Amino acid sequence: MALSADGPEPQYEKVVSGYETFHHRERFACEWGGELPELCLAYESWGELSPARDNAVLLHTGLSASSHAHSHPRNPHPGWWEDFIGPGRAIDTQRWFVICANLLGGCYGSTGPSSTNPKTGEPWATDFPVITVGDMVRAQLLLLDHLKIEKLHAAVGASLGGMQSLQIAALAPQRVGRIVSISAALRSYPQSIALRFVQRQAVMLDPEWRGGRYYGSSFPHRGQKVAREIGTITYRSGPEWIERFGRERGDAPPGLGEDFSVESYLVHQGEKFCLQYDPNSYLYISKAMDLFDLAPPGQSTPPLARICAPALVVGVSSDVLFPAWQQRELAERLEAEGCPVTWSLIDGHYGHDTFLIDRQRIGAPLKAHLEAGG
Amino acid sequence: MALSADGPEPQYEKVVSGYETFHHRERFACEWGGELPELCLAYESWGELSPARDNAVLLHTGLSASSHAHSHPRNPHPGWWEDFIGPGRAIDTQRWFVICANLLGGCYGSTGPSSTNPKTGEPWATDFPVITVGDMVRAQLLLLDHLKIEKLHAAVGASLGGMQSLQIAALAPQRVGRIVSISAALRSYPQSIALRFVQRQAVMLDPEWRGGRYYGSSFPHRGQKVAREIGTITYRSGPEWIERFGRERGDAPPGLGEDFSVESYLVHQGEKFCLQYDPNSYLYISKAMDLFDLAPPGQSTPPLARICAPALVVGVSSDVLFPAWQQRELAERLEAEGCPVTWSLIDGHYGHDTFLIDRQRIGAPLKAHLEAGG
Repeated sequence: MALSADGPEPQYEKVVSGYETFHHRERFACEWGGELPELCLAYESWGELSPARDNAVLLHTGLSASSHAHSHPRNPHPGWWEDFIGPGRAIDTQRWFVICANLLGGCYGSTGPSSTNPKTGEPWATDFPVITVGDMVRAQLLLLDHLKIEKLHAAVGASLGGMQSLQIAALAPQRVGRIVSISAALRSYPQSIALRFVQRQAVMLDPEWRGGRYYGSSFPHRGQKVAREIGTITYRSGPEWIERFGRERGDAPPGLGEDFSVESYLVHQGEKFCLQYDPNSYLYISKAMDLFDLAPPGQSTPPLARICAPALVVGVSSDVLFPAWQQRELAERLEAEGCPVTWSLIDGHYGHDTFLIDRQRIGAPLKAHLEAGG
Repeated sequence: MALSADGPEPQYEKVVSGYETFHHRERFACEWGGELPELCLAYESWGELSPARDNAVLLHTGLSASSHAHSHPRNPHPGWWEDFIGPGRAIDTQRWFVICANLLGGCYGSTGPSSTNPKTGEPWATDFPVITVGDMVRAQLLLLDHLKIEKLHAAVGASLGGMQSLQIAALAPQRVGRIVSISAALRSYPQSIALRFVQRQAVMLDPEWRGGRYYGSSFPHRGQKVAREIGTITYRSGPEWIERFGRERGDAPPGLGEDFSVESYLVHQGEKFCLQYDPNSYLYISKAMDLFDLAPPGQSTPPLARICAPALVVGVSSDVLFPAWQQRELAERLEAEGCPVTWSLIDGHYGHDTFLIDRQRIGAPLKAHLEAGG
């Protein structure tokens, strides 16, 4: 009836390889206080940088993705946006030099809570400073400096990635030619904050979390698993699950544990994720999403007002985490600030995860926006 | 940064008093197998039973409520539907004899996992059989026999209570004069099953759960708290929280724990609940909700087809747990089976919990339905 607690605790393992590493060897001050004496960003790239260095597309990731958006010889496994990137595809590698960086705070090669704190020689764990979407983006701007890319053709992202694409266009408007924001928002609203809060609580509820100091030992995989199960509910949608699972359940009489097919699906998603993602990264990055606000009250020139690039804003009718009204609000606010906005509402069943699935209806407006006027 | 783990574990305490107890001293076989050698139902009542014994209104509770729907001399504390019950109110105690029973499987005086298993002399814990909404209702029918009430004027409930009002009208159509189903459904759909599954996982994740055998010792209050925090997200709604909390947060720099006002609200709700509700009851009763289906496939005469009483079906536009389309479906299916249906959609901000709050818009159609033709 309980979650399985048999056998040794599984070990969390890093599964991403084949990325490049940008090492910034100077102090990096974080927005909410605290600093990193140095930082690394893992990144991968596809296509060729033009001689004028003006064809770069920076692809920002969501909470859980690595820099591995697309396969390449050093890592031939399919990436998380495999079908969206390539010759002739939505992000056309015959035109664009595509860069995808792992998030600051992440666990796929960039500096995060599992990295060694140079001051102590131990993993940062929960001594890692609170980071924001602004911090993530400022680290990416350092990477662009390193790559000698003065101005991006476009900043592209979905979910937390969309927040970053907006944030970089606000922080460095002269360096961003176009914006693509899919299933993101102007700010995080209380319902999504609440949904992430309970995920963090689930991680911290696991006694193996030990205040975040679990490195080199068993880790809070059961809490992380429940957290991801909660997350999965927010990423997918009711209508899809009615079609896919309905009320299908196992043949055994019901108990208190896994029973309905939708429950087995959640368990599978949770299990898969928790074995490859650092729980502390989950805490820090989900918190950064909560703190995101492009138009905080009381600022005469909020970040939003600095954005000037033409923007594509895409929303999905069945998204429960970043509902379509939040996309509409974002589009209207950008337009009110004078940005040319293309607005696309996708009526579909896949909820927040549509950006990972619907190559046609996400890919077509994305391709058109990147290639407009080109 | 972590959940507080200071001090001794709080003890779970029973807080309800002043109820009557119906003791059924015979074997009760449960729908999914297993049996109870005997059972108790705690119940309270208001108003007077008419000499013809034909004015009884059975009020069914949601997952977390006790039989204490309204204050009375033996327990003067306000009940969970205090303002809906009384002379001249929606459920008019000058007309109706109102009975509210605590759920089978509950922890407010009825037989549940915290009760003593007469065969072992120990609490049932997770040896308690899986129970269904049908089991709950069959126990209530025994209570009606005991009270010599052959036919109810009406069966009334919201949420799980609405499921029961439908179930009793299907199991004993000749004993139910009218039905009121507020924010319930024809069946549980996968998204709501998923939302309850992760709550159960949170309870069972707490090491203090100990396979359910925690009675007489510390109990899994942290897991129960997180479970209730998740539940609270499903009971309330985004728009209400935007008005009420917005992005308000404490003055301290953010950390990984409680920070935004909406988070403090969740923590408060979770803390309050977990100190008075038995976690095992939470597991069993939420599972019973998942198993509810009035029209399972492959049955030539599903329970739904046996319902014949005039029904009031009420839905709320902002309900994310039992969305309005599920109320519409229920109303349409009842009508298709020949039931006279009154259908009411409330456009409001309070989500699933509207039935606890909106005395006017819930109370008015409820009163009208109970008094129609009378």
